[in-house]
Amino acid sequence: MSFKRLGGLIAQKKNPTVAGLDPRLDHLPPDLRGQVGRDGSLESAAGAILAFNKGLIDALADVVPAVKPQLACYEAFGLPGLAALRETMVYAASKGLYVIADAKRGDIGSTAKAYADAFLGETIVGGSAHRPFPADCMTVNPYLGSEGVLPFVERCRKYSRAVFVLAKTSNASAGELQDRDVEGAPLYRRVAELAAAWGPEYVGLVVGATYPEQLEELRRALPQTFFLIPGYGAQGGGADDVAPGFGPGGARAIVNSSRAISCAWQKSGLPWQEAARAEALRMRDELRQTLKL
Amino acid sequence: MSFKRLGGLIAQKKNPTVAGLDPRLDHLPPDLRGQVGRDGSLESAAGAILAFNKGLIDALADVVPAVKPQLACYEAFGLPGLAALRETMVYAASKGLYVIADAKRGDIGSTAKAYADAFLGETIVGGSAHRPFPADCMTVNPYLGSEGVLPFVERCRKYSRAVFVLAKTSNASAGELQDRDVEGAPLYRRVAELAAAWGPEYVGLVVGATYPEQLEELRRALPQTFFLIPGYGAQGGGADDVAPGFGPGGARAIVNSSRAISCAWQKSGLPWQEAARAEALRMRDELRQTLKL
Repeated sequence: MSFKRLGGLIAQKKNPTVAGLDPRLDHLPPDLRGQVGRDGSLESAAGAILAFNKGLIDALADVVPAVKPQLACYEAFGLPGLAALRETMVYAASKGLYVIADAKRGDIGSTAKAYADAFLGETIVGGSAHRPFPADCMTVNPYLGSEGVLPFVERCRKYSRAVFVLAKTSNASAGELQDRDVEGAPLYRRVAELAAAWGPEYVGLVVGATYPEQLEELRRALPQTFFLIPGYGAQGGGADDVAPGFGPGGARAIVNSSRAISCAWQKSGLPWQEAARAEALRMRDELRQTLKL
Repeated sequence: MSFKRLGGLIAQKKNPTVAGLDPRLDHLPPDLRGQVGRDGSLESAAGAILAFNKGLIDALADVVPAVKPQLACYEAFGLPGLAALRETMVYAASKGLYVIADAKRGDIGSTAKAYADAFLGETIVGGSAHRPFPADCMTVNPYLGSEGVLPFVERCRKYSRAVFVLAKTSNASAGELQDRDVEGAPLYRRVAELAAAWGPEYVGLVVGATYPEQLEELRRALPQTFFLIPGYGAQGGGADDVAPGFGPGGARAIVNSSRAISCAWQKSGLPWQEAARAEALRMRDELRQTLKL
């Protein structure tokens, strides 16, 4: 049961929150922004991003069970950015946090296998095993069907990891394809059916807080499946919106908040680590109250 | 017209082939494999992969117009693998080749923007512009709808680049979602309709050689759209299978071959660079004959 560790951490901290680590230069608080760009290098930007992430992890490690770095925000800073991603993953794991790589990868079978090695499995070189980007879990795009997802599931089985497959994403245009009627049910339901067949032990679903009705519908249809719920906070969803995604006793879902936590300093006037911690505590308490945890 | 440069290179070389650079350790010829793994490091593996790619580029640069590195194969070797990817991209560009990053990225709007910066645009740090992973073109997954694709299109407009959106992929399970009936037409047709709305100047489609009927149907429906056709060669498609994807005079499509070219040495008995070149020439001549170029 590969969501077991995540479920255990959520229960232990009584907090189904994952803090998104989606750094951008304009998210950096003034003291870190000052470190960027003196030489205009990607290295200086990546260094400030890593310092920001480590500071957030320090401030949040006893409050939240998990962090979710968004791959795009690191790829945009090239090799130094990806080095900062890797260090962030290692640092978060060293603090006992569950690491979800928000990579949304998906490809034909042999290629999906390589992505699974990169994030969930191992790469063997001359008898030595390496973990290129060490995550506990990652997000996967279902568009290529079973062949594009099962190589991830195989790694999940072998290494006790998990994936969240995109069903109904949190963005405004999500429905352009995902809501279209596919032989009597929306596309996101067809993805959910596939995910159920791939196995709820290892395969969860991404369902946006911005679509609470669909969240409730999918929870009814898949009582055993773990949900990753983005769209809380800066994207507009609140605790009432995410509540339908949870199972009995507040189990089987985790809610992401990125900017609302990491950029809390922009609104609160507190120093940035204190501001992030205060917002994470506020969100935790709101979820505890709404979900009766 | 952002496919103009690719179209020009295809016409100049009379060859609508893109050579896939999808390296794996067991693809390396013996002289390069010997360089890997003495220390079991990712660096030694990535070094051999880069030498392999550069050798292939040297052997193919006057024959093919484009190369397509598959991101997963580099991510699986971590930071050294991604450094090899970057150097491969720069080296290919220095030889006049068009570089298609097979990344299959796709995310909500603000994140898609960061991916577009990483591969097609620029990242600005303190007034300095950087190109993290310099590609001319990349593949994009449409599952998140317009919001997930338009940030790429915006970069294409600004920097004269292009994207190929996944419509009907080459793998066996492609149809599990892509062939499902969506209000009277298969899902891949709905993606094609969106792609047409996003604009054929910048947005092409991925359509597998392994599904020649769908290739013909999509060509009829979208006469102006550029197609990237994977699945030729090792995946089973031949020149007759890809022909329906081309427009009049052999225009508006490019056919990918990866292992059949890069691993030609495994079958031919020739030294690996000669073997790759011989297979690329064979494929070119077969396409020229079938398409009457």
